[in-house]
Amino acid sequence: MPKISQKGQQMPASPIRKLTPFADKAKLDGKKVYHLNIGQPDIETPEVMLNAVKNIDFKVWAYTASEGTLAYRSKLTEYYNKLGYNIKPEHILVTTGGSEAITISMMSCLDAGDEVIIPEPFYANYNGFAHQTGVVVKPILSYIENGFALPPISDFEKLITEKTKAIMICNPNNPTGYLYSKEEMEALKQLALKYDLYLFSDEAYREFCYDGREFISPMHLEGLEENVMVLDTVSKRYSACGARLGCIITKNKAVLAAALKFAQARLSPGMVEQIAGAAAVDTPDAYFINVKNEYTKRRDILVQSLNKIEGVFCPNPGGAFYVVAKFPIDDTDAFCQWMLETFSYENQTVMMAPATGFYSTPSGGLNEVRLAYVLNADDLEKAMVCLEEGLKVYPGRVE
Amino acid sequence: MPKISQKGQQMPASPIRKLTPFADKAKLDGKKVYHLNIGQPDIETPEVMLNAVKNIDFKVWAYTASEGTLAYRSKLTEYYNKLGYNIKPEHILVTTGGSEAITISMMSCLDAGDEVIIPEPFYANYNGFAHQTGVVVKPILSYIENGFALPPISDFEKLITEKTKAIMICNPNNPTGYLYSKEEMEALKQLALKYDLYLFSDEAYREFCYDGREFISPMHLEGLEENVMVLDTVSKRYSACGARLGCIITKNKAVLAAALKFAQARLSPGMVEQIAGAAAVDTPDAYFINVKNEYTKRRDILVQSLNKIEGVFCPNPGGAFYVVAKFPIDDTDAFCQWMLETFSYENQTVMMAPATGFYSTPSGGLNEVRLAYVLNADDLEKAMVCLEEGLKVYPGRVE
Repeated sequence: MPKISQKGQQMPASPIRKLTPFADKAKLDGKKVYHLNIGQPDIETPEVMLNAVKNIDFKVWAYTASEGTLAYRSKLTEYYNKLGYNIKPEHILVTTGGSEAITISMMSCLDAGDEVIIPEPFYANYNGFAHQTGVVVKPILSYIENGFALPPISDFEKLITEKTKAIMICNPNNPTGYLYSKEEMEALKQLALKYDLYLFSDEAYREFCYDGREFISPMHLEGLEENVMVLDTVSKRYSACGARLGCIITKNKAVLAAALKFAQARLSPGMVEQIAGAAAVDTPDAYFINVKNEYTKRRDILVQSLNKIEGVFCPNPGGAFYVVAKFPIDDTDAFCQWMLETFSYENQTVMMAPATGFYSTPSGGLNEVRLAYVLNADDLEKAMVCLEEGLKVYPGRVE
Repeated sequence: MPKISQKGQQMPASPIRKLTPFADKAKLDGKKVYHLNIGQPDIETPEVMLNAVKNIDFKVWAYTASEGTLAYRSKLTEYYNKLGYNIKPEHILVTTGGSEAITISMMSCLDAGDEVIIPEPFYANYNGFAHQTGVVVKPILSYIENGFALPPISDFEKLITEKTKAIMICNPNNPTGYLYSKEEMEALKQLALKYDLYLFSDEAYREFCYDGREFISPMHLEGLEENVMVLDTVSKRYSACGARLGCIITKNKAVLAAALKFAQARLSPGMVEQIAGAAAVDTPDAYFINVKNEYTKRRDILVQSLNKIEGVFCPNPGGAFYVVAKFPIDDTDAFCQWMLETFSYENQTVMMAPATGFYSTPSGGLNEVRLAYVLNADDLEKAMVCLEEGLKVYPGRVE
């Protein structure tokens, strides 16, 4: 039997989906499970977007241009220029989800062995994309005590070697929900310029900023045009994760030309998705206001409930729809599994993502859990009661 | 300014799209261009498939399972088992187009530096996927004189080293249209078993076999279960290239587990596409009979017309919708560009793909051109008149 590759053997399994095998019916024993483990929102996709799918009127479901249709890229500039990005269609490469935006950007900017510095905890699949492309992730710890703010620039500088080619941020952050301030973004700009580094800005959660806080993209910062790679997706913005539609934005022509070659090899992004994505740009403002209100309410419930539980600490994040909380537990992998398999309260339990999956530093996140507030307020409250009861009786509690 | 990666610099541009920059309005001077250069069929997508898109009734466009929905994989087994593949849903990993089926298979089976032997000429983007994954393509020449039949097994054996991990075929072949016989497939089976190699079978054109000839997949051959990776797509089968929906089929559990990890990192294939793909399995037989009749007619026109032109030789291929023809030219890159930019006959011209893009052996295909018969019979006939006139007056003609 032919062997599988080393690359395949060593590919990290997606930790977000790590607990899935335990979630089979037999082990769950008919329990109701509150899924706070994944970032699949329950929010409805905008009608204008779904209607565009229902109203397709072509006869041949054809390839589009590899960089995406001009119609879609033009419509996207409307969206981005409202945000002050000041771009043209030729600065956009349409991708199959944010995932492909990341892999193509990594391949275009970094060679195997080159390093990217990423504040930790970070979106777990960055590890997979880096492994796939041979890129080396250099994690830089951020801390729950200050809400996972940007680590000091001096900490970044300690990690910079001649192999360092990029800094990557996710803003607002998955998994921490942290929203970088203007000062933090300015500091990153200076760092990128000083060391001639790419700044990868994963902005999947751009729409989800709370308490009136302002979202600052590196696209808003002057003088950084050649360094910035915006990595985007419609997944969260329009609750359209299954559309697999994203894009790269950059004003660096050489990088975009390289990225286009990778894009040409895979021929084209989805045609129906681009039609839907163009229509989605006309989503009424009321949709986002409602969504933001809903998430703010959920976040408040989650953060307040968590902080009321003895031994639990949860910062109040400014964006996205996740929190990372500290539990009185020294092995949250074991705890999350126990909650799912062994525990139940009124025949219910909660599924969460152990934070270890979001750290690449060994033993990082052992006492932390990521919770996504993708359920309605009522279910969230019930889930928090379950969690509190679980923590009361968990045999491995450390305080 | 940060530099782009070596990988990006060295990424081969897709040669199929090579001539596109010349095809701007200014240079074309209002000429009508017959596009025989790309594999975008003009055939209509089956109604059942488009109706499935129009009739979506979900409210949240959500992620699906990374391996594809069970509903779609189950429906696919219906399709494949009618062909005698004898598979279950757990043998299928749904991918974003055939392109992703290829890259994920390469990464799961081969490490950087490992070699895959591919009969040449071959689908040009294989080079791009290999470059992306660090895999080394070892081309093995097939010849126009015998219609690009499988090269002798002894030629394969000369190329096998300890780095050889796989043999890859495209059957029926893009670009040559050649359909491998049962004897050829048996010979490949023996070779794969003897050297413990993977057999990658790109079957994008499975539906397009003419003159009553039988399509033989390695899935039909017993004893090869652990070696076979079928790489498939709905693109050509249902004229749905823009759906970006493909799959990997293998009974090798270890490889599929590795492939799933790569698939999990990119989260999921498209949701709407899987709904449409499931519906497409119920495409009435009449659709395929019509399509096959149409393509047979077109192939006959193209092959007969080509062979009537002085100095041109074109084999009569058994499948797909391409031919590779030999022209009385020693630089078909220059000729194709001249046809597009300089030549016109009754204000019309023909766009073709120089075969050089399908060879990785230097100087391979310099006197060959690939033509896709993706236009209706009437346009094809006009295109052939144009080509004949062009060859008459081309200043670089060698005979």
